Amino acid sequence: MKARVMVMLRNGVLDPQGEAVRAALGNLGFEGVGGVRQGKLIELDLAETDPEAARHSVTAMCEKLLANTVIESYQIEIL
Amino acid sequence: MKARVMVMLRNGVLDPQGEAVRAALGNLGFEGVGGVRQGKLIELDLAETDPEAARHSVTAMCEKLLANTVIESYQIEIL
Repeated sequence: MKARVMVMLRNGVLDPQGEAVRAALGNLGFEGVGGVRQGKLIELDLAETDPEAARHSVTAMCEKLLANTVIESYQIEIL
Repeated sequence: MKARVMVMLRNGVLDPQGEAVRAALGNLGFEGVGGVRQGKLIELDLAETDPEAARHSVTAMCEKLLANTVIESYQIEIL
């Protein structure tokens, strides 16, 4: 079973990486880009076959390792 | 209009970051994690209101800046 975790900086937390991308897109002539946020995408191959158990286990991984919950929020998709 | 770009290393391209996460999860006692791939998640706020035009423009951004298409593949979601 596959799981996808999307980790983004929380709203209000400064995102210099996203800001750099926004500036670079402007320099390349792309107009109308209001804001850019950059986060992490983590894809996991799990031996677990039960979707509920997989979600539970991935939530624990996020809380312990994958996300810094002080400044980052995460979303889990079980594929 | 919002767009989300998911950039992942292509299959077969070594992913040391994902490998480090896999090892760390193992050390923390999470079992049954077969493989981990880590990529980038980029969220864009666009002034464009037509979904087709937005997708077209974001594809150009990916080809020019957001992804290194030699080693990375990308997926675009218009939200």
